[in-house]
Amino acid sequence: VFSPHSFAQTGNVRWRCATSWPKSLDTIYGGAVSVSERISAMTDGKFTIRPYEAGELVPGLQVLDAVQQGTVECGHSAGYYYVGKNPTLGFATSIPFGLNANEHNAWLYSGGGLELLRGVYDDFGIINFPAGNTGAQMGGWFKKEVKTAADLKGLKMRIPGLGGQVMAKLGVNVQVIPGGEIYLALDRGAIDAAEWVGPYDDEKLGLQKAAKFYYYPGWWEPGPALDLMVGKKAYAALPKAYKEILASACAEANIQMMADYDAKNQAALLRLQKGGTQLRRYSSDILKAANKAMQELHAENAGKNASYKKVYTPWEVYRRNVHAWHQINEKPMLDFNP
Amino acid sequence: VFSPHSFAQTGNVRWRCATSWPKSLDTIYGGAVSVSERISAMTDGKFTIRPYEAGELVPGLQVLDAVQQGTVECGHSAGYYYVGKNPTLGFATSIPFGLNANEHNAWLYSGGGLELLRGVYDDFGIINFPAGNTGAQMGGWFKKEVKTAADLKGLKMRIPGLGGQVMAKLGVNVQVIPGGEIYLALDRGAIDAAEWVGPYDDEKLGLQKAAKFYYYPGWWEPGPALDLMVGKKAYAALPKAYKEILASACAEANIQMMADYDAKNQAALLRLQKGGTQLRRYSSDILKAANKAMQELHAENAGKNASYKKVYTPWEVYRRNVHAWHQINEKPMLDFNP
Repeated sequence: VFSPHSFAQTGNVRWRCATSWPKSLDTIYGGAVSVSERISAMTDGKFTIRPYEAGELVPGLQVLDAVQQGTVECGHSAGYYYVGKNPTLGFATSIPFGLNANEHNAWLYSGGGLELLRGVYDDFGIINFPAGNTGAQMGGWFKKEVKTAADLKGLKMRIPGLGGQVMAKLGVNVQVIPGGEIYLALDRGAIDAAEWVGPYDDEKLGLQKAAKFYYYPGWWEPGPALDLMVGKKAYAALPKAYKEILASACAEANIQMMADYDAKNQAALLRLQKGGTQLRRYSSDILKAANKAMQELHAENAGKNASYKKVYTPWEVYRRNVHAWHQINEKPMLDFNP
Repeated sequence: VFSPHSFAQTGNVRWRCATSWPKSLDTIYGGAVSVSERISAMTDGKFTIRPYEAGELVPGLQVLDAVQQGTVECGHSAGYYYVGKNPTLGFATSIPFGLNANEHNAWLYSGGGLELLRGVYDDFGIINFPAGNTGAQMGGWFKKEVKTAADLKGLKMRIPGLGGQVMAKLGVNVQVIPGGEIYLALDRGAIDAAEWVGPYDDEKLGLQKAAKFYYYPGWWEPGPALDLMVGKKAYAALPKAYKEILASACAEANIQMMADYDAKNQAALLRLQKGGTQLRRYSSDILKAANKAMQELHAENAGKNASYKKVYTPWEVYRRNVHAWHQINEKPMLDFNP
């Protein structure tokens, strides 16, 4: 016979979770909600994590800092927002021409990736748990078509992170603008192009009303992962079972968010196309130039940053192998496209 | 201050889990091990599930029956092994020319698929939790090359389930042989071709020593999912928190198995190729003929089975939509293949 209150003898734990997302982006903010709800359900409400949207406790791009300083016990954010602190954090999220969602998960959970990334986050007093993936994103909105790499030169584009660094190498005038301000900047012509996430999220920002051409693939973000960043002190104070429950809830949030994006993007894309959005595929010329620039960036970063080299070297071997496998087992079905 | 024994006041639960797998197939049997280990870790060892390999408690293809009869509280198996009881169970695992692993998860977790499948399993007194995916499999081993659909006629091939029914429509003499006996049958020429899983598992059976040509893609299994099948009586007796922990452990096993296969298959494929295995891609002629036969099978099954029609109809709408999205966001990166 079971006790009706399984956790009755266990102390309560109340955490706060700062996030980088507005609540309106329900899929990505949903990652933090999912972690919160699953942990509460698994502990009969004894261990709760309350998520806060960007700006409620701290600005959206200072979540890592807030966890590091102990302002909050944890945060839900993207490692690559903090590449200014250490460019190696880009590997926690997505690398241009890198791994797709499944490949990234394989690297994390079965290829030694999680251990490598934890070594990077450890410098910030943080232990990271992958907790969400958007899948391959779109390649951004442009007011005018771009057919060759030369067409990119001089364009003003909102694109952060490593993708922005690649675009800068191609002559783009790179702008960093918070999500909520992209529409106005694009609509008023302060910028010529902008990327955000994909159809479901971009539609909410209204970007389709400010630019006509919607490019794909999102070569700079083939499988962006989000992390639950947990302060090591708060983590150490958890009972062992709660640590395990936290890990499992994050894995579940990871697979759930990927499912949500895959389930919702196509309907949004059809709505956008019905409204006049024109889909355009990046030319081979642009992809080749961008990939070349990214390989130069890898060499530069690995040359001057030991942490980057330590992660990049095995990651690159892994990337080649898993890409080769997916050329065999996944691509031919996409080619046939029944 | 936390109690060091969080679950000290909770009753112990001891379950047995029959599986369809030999222990030697560590990735797929690993799904049951993962569920077991994670549940134990999350409950401080208060809720344990002991997995048994195929044949230890019940034969590998009678796991659903054993759960239905209450011989075991749960089992780890594939729904499509039981299409003889209801062909709709095929949707729980994989359908020829159907969903890949991510698409299947999106359908399950965000597209209404899990609810539909639970309605099917309910007839057997079972509640199902997806708990593993192998990713797209290979297309089997052949002693001689097959270039057109006509080349398939009269071949004896080991291939179970809906894939076998499609092959039968194409004139193949379909054989059902347990995994452990495939090598001998193929080596002695009792069969001309056989399929199992993919490089990592097939290598263990030694199929590369009995046939030279290794075909891809595995169009009949683009993303096979495994289920934890739980007896509804045993499930109902669990405390609520344990129910939630069970669900989360299964989601974690789902993402973990996919990671393991993606991480291990390429190295195995390279070993096979080094040993003389010749890779061959199924021709467009064979894929088209097989897809046509599968669409006929859908129509036949939906026509005579209300359960099949209830699941197939929304599944087919979902399939078209998610395939369209992956043609945009995933395929172009595989095409570029940096």
